[in-house]
Amino acid sequence: MAHKSDIEIARAAQKRPIQEIGAKLGIGSDHLLPYGHDKAKVSQEFIDSVADRPDGKLILVTAINPTPAGEGKTTTTVGLGDGLNAIGKKAAICIREASLGPCFGMKGGAAGGGYAQVVPMEEMNLHFTGDFHAITSAHNLLAAMIDNHIYWGNALGIDERRVMWRRVLDMNDRALRDVVTSLGGVANGFPRQTGFDITVASEVMAILCLSKNLADLEARLGDIIVAYTRERAPIYCRDIGAAGAMTVLLKDAMQPNLVQTLENNPAFVHGGPFANIAHGCNSLIATQTALKLADYVVTEAGFGADLGAEKFMNIKCRKGGLAPSVVVVVATVRAMKMNGGVAKADLGAENVDAVKAGCPNLGRHIENVKGFGVPVVVAINHFVTDTDAEVQAVMDYVAGHGSEAILCKHWAEGSAGVIEFATRVAEIADAGIANFAPLYDDDLGLFEKIETIAKRIYRADEVLADKKIRDQLRAWEEAGYGNLPVCMAKTQYSFSTDPNLRGAPTGHSVPVREVRLSAGAGFVVVICGEIMTMPGLPSKPAAMTIGLNDAGEIEGLF
Amino acid sequence: MAHKSDIEIARAAQKRPIQEIGAKLGIGSDHLLPYGHDKAKVSQEFIDSVADRPDGKLILVTAINPTPAGEGKTTTTVGLGDGLNAIGKKAAICIREASLGPCFGMKGGAAGGGYAQVVPMEEMNLHFTGDFHAITSAHNLLAAMIDNHIYWGNALGIDERRVMWRRVLDMNDRALRDVVTSLGGVANGFPRQTGFDITVASEVMAILCLSKNLADLEARLGDIIVAYTRERAPIYCRDIGAAGAMTVLLKDAMQPNLVQTLENNPAFVHGGPFANIAHGCNSLIATQTALKLADYVVTEAGFGADLGAEKFMNIKCRKGGLAPSVVVVVATVRAMKMNGGVAKADLGAENVDAVKAGCPNLGRHIENVKGFGVPVVVAINHFVTDTDAEVQAVMDYVAGHGSEAILCKHWAEGSAGVIEFATRVAEIADAGIANFAPLYDDDLGLFEKIETIAKRIYRADEVLADKKIRDQLRAWEEAGYGNLPVCMAKTQYSFSTDPNLRGAPTGHSVPVREVRLSAGAGFVVVICGEIMTMPGLPSKPAAMTIGLNDAGEIEGLF
Repeated sequence: MAHKSDIEIARAAQKRPIQEIGAKLGIGSDHLLPYGHDKAKVSQEFIDSVADRPDGKLILVTAINPTPAGEGKTTTTVGLGDGLNAIGKKAAICIREASLGPCFGMKGGAAGGGYAQVVPMEEMNLHFTGDFHAITSAHNLLAAMIDNHIYWGNALGIDERRVMWRRVLDMNDRALRDVVTSLGGVANGFPRQTGFDITVASEVMAILCLSKNLADLEARLGDIIVAYTRERAPIYCRDIGAAGAMTVLLKDAMQPNLVQTLENNPAFVHGGPFANIAHGCNSLIATQTALKLADYVVTEAGFGADLGAEKFMNIKCRKGGLAPSVVVVVATVRAMKMNGGVAKADLGAENVDAVKAGCPNLGRHIENVKGFGVPVVVAINHFVTDTDAEVQAVMDYVAGHGSEAILCKHWAEGSAGVIEFATRVAEIADAGIANFAPLYDDDLGLFEKIETIAKRIYRADEVLADKKIRDQLRAWEEAGYGNLPVCMAKTQYSFSTDPNLRGAPTGHSVPVREVRLSAGAGFVVVICGEIMTMPGLPSKPAAMTIGLNDAGEIEGLF
Repeated sequence: MAHKSDIEIARAAQKRPIQEIGAKLGIGSDHLLPYGHDKAKVSQEFIDSVADRPDGKLILVTAINPTPAGEGKTTTTVGLGDGLNAIGKKAAICIREASLGPCFGMKGGAAGGGYAQVVPMEEMNLHFTGDFHAITSAHNLLAAMIDNHIYWGNALGIDERRVMWRRVLDMNDRALRDVVTSLGGVANGFPRQTGFDITVASEVMAILCLSKNLADLEARLGDIIVAYTRERAPIYCRDIGAAGAMTVLLKDAMQPNLVQTLENNPAFVHGGPFANIAHGCNSLIATQTALKLADYVVTEAGFGADLGAEKFMNIKCRKGGLAPSVVVVVATVRAMKMNGGVAKADLGAENVDAVKAGCPNLGRHIENVKGFGVPVVVAINHFVTDTDAEVQAVMDYVAGHGSEAILCKHWAEGSAGVIEFATRVAEIADAGIANFAPLYDDDLGLFEKIETIAKRIYRADEVLADKKIRDQLRAWEEAGYGNLPVCMAKTQYSFSTDPNLRGAPTGHSVPVREVRLSAGAGFVVVICGEIMTMPGLPSKPAAMTIGLNDAGEIEGLF
């Protein structure tokens, strides 16, 4: 058959009214705040009313290190959710919201693909239910109040050179990375150098995604360190008096969004913290709500398992008291070939040896995830060019590592393509063999936490950090932040800090360039390499070809 | 009885589902895109389907020059709408959306007051249906694409010193008024001085409020002049290739929002262009839609009649082919006293002489509005401290000027307090005595248009403008912009450009400080005095006391 594009498939979706989707989970329509006919937020009253119910089984979908070949993590999350429903299980999926800014740079940003998508796809990639706009407003209100405090006398004694809180926009705009504000004279304040990040990189986003409820949200917002005095004493958001108003701005954004898959199964799409400098997971409140309403909840983590699953386990599960029953590692034959040294242009030709050469990347992720005490299933996300011999090579490799790999055709067939896979995942989840534990205890030192991840996940020999960084970590321990987890920021393309080092490298070092305290979100960001927190647009941005066609449909977005 | 606060009254509202409100106007629920249970957008399909219907009667509510005593223009708009419905007329109201930023500076921002309010009041003052966020995104996308164009080689030859397009945020943030962007080296572009305005001041906002439909919107966005070359040739938004993507971002924002009054009558709340540098009216598409659905449409204009009604008539009516059947000028006894020289602290005491002394301000507004060929009714918006003698003084004055004034008690009593008023307004509208015409023709010269307004509305002796400004106006005429209306930007507190000159001054001059071309919106902004396009926060911003109480209700916003 002729393949349809993702957007053609999404537009042909037979969507059901969102009230019907909510009813599948027992959410009454009075507890669904509609945004159009196909999106809704779940009321806090309803969430509170199910707090005492037992949790369903949590299934994490993660992946090998991403390559330009694509691995299909969100697509597999959606496909597995549909597959579980197709075999008679009550399942929901939990994925992240898309960022608006990057949609105008490169085409893409869809929620899944092929016949494993979440809809309404266009709205989800544009304003959706306004959550990210609310985060932008809350973040920038705090910024305005900081400068306003300084303007009106600076009673707190903020050192203008040490204001840590930047501003944000959900836009790819390199011109805003580094700016000087408050020019133009006395009435505009005290000039100082600062900048803008993209909204998903805001600590407010990370906080929203880790907060249990609105009271927790407000407390965490208050904990944000916004600046320091000349004596290096921290100034908190609560000192500025902004936490209450920020909470008001985020009141609706805290409520999980319910949408549906192409097969009309429930999907919670909520939160989207930057997977580099934050933990990169769907919101805790969405995942916890889904666990109360469904027997199986399928969710994803950012990037490959070395970054995404590690943060999911060590940050989100730790803070939320979650424990996955089974982890799916997504791999593709094409990505294995790239890990095995094949260039993207040559991926079309059968190359079983390259597949075998790339498999150690997959193998190490399997080992790592098992290190958290959780069973692993590998999903081979099928591409039309894959040959049987190539697929078999992956299966054999995985079997040789004491795990199992299952071929999945959800992209082309929807749930019909993942019946075996969904059945097996459910069996493993039901078997209760997981014995989850985070990789390190709260009371381990901050530097030792970094070392633990570097050695046990990245398989590095050592962590390199100069005295200034070690002193900073010790200072935070003395200030009472030593019990926080660490949030690693490094390239997603390699286990190492060198993005070109594919496969399963060993013997490398992890240099720590900088550490940042996200006191509100509750983690220490450990930066190992260049981290760009405000993207730019390419020379021919997608925006130049985005528009409405004569039928009023959006063209060029996908 | 003990008076309740606006927010207490609003919270006690017996709201009906928005589908019921839509049904009153014949809008089927499939054509109402819900945002929660009490807000909805009207579909473009429905708007298109009623395009051939005859229009209802248009009623404009305007006011005397605003004073710190308050005049209650929105309150009267709502009260009159409810009053018309109470006497059995099919009426809808059309008002503007509130800006988010100022809510965090000073308390306030409610939509009406007392028993003449539109609900849901809190959402309307926060994110509402996201229209302003969409405008912020569209505006800033264009800004990012301009800098991106320069970054990637500047094929259009933009003079970086002559980029006219700033950025916007819906936030009171003085630190952003004047900034230098693109610092930090080669990867961040070419440093240049620019700044941020508040979102309502964006030309995108003005365009959205004057566009007939999405195609018109896209064409107008394309017409925006974003920069000039070294040779002073204009660079348009369409040259940058941004108009299509901006239209996609504004697709939903273009649809009018339907909410309800406390008495469950339909209210379209849509658009909110800055009444200083734009025309300050509810969107054309909302007003036109309401006119197709109701027999009477009550709408408001910004500030006093010298600014707001003038722009409503000369800009909005001209561009939209609208013609008001009757104009209501709102006055209060207290504001008359202030115009008569009484200080705010002394407003409580009866002072009939001061009322009489202030009435010429009202009288001139009546004369001015009549100059557009439209009959006038004065609404005396009653305050509890008003004495009968004071009210009678206003009535006598208005009668002496060949018009009529009616005492209105909608604030305290809702529609029951405006039965006489609503009846009389409907009679005048039905009498068909209006013979509306804008004050000047399209083909009058730009400077002559300014003079016409200055002399006939402000009653100034002359317009002062130096050669540079006159040359600029002539250059625009030669470039084909001579047929545009002018959008006056001056203080709202006086007919003159001196905010302290109350009453009905004569013999003054109108100095033009600057002129700006809003080629997309389609007017020339004429700045007569200081215009602040990015407000600041006060020393104790309202945000410091805004928060959620234990019941989850918002405190401190009103």
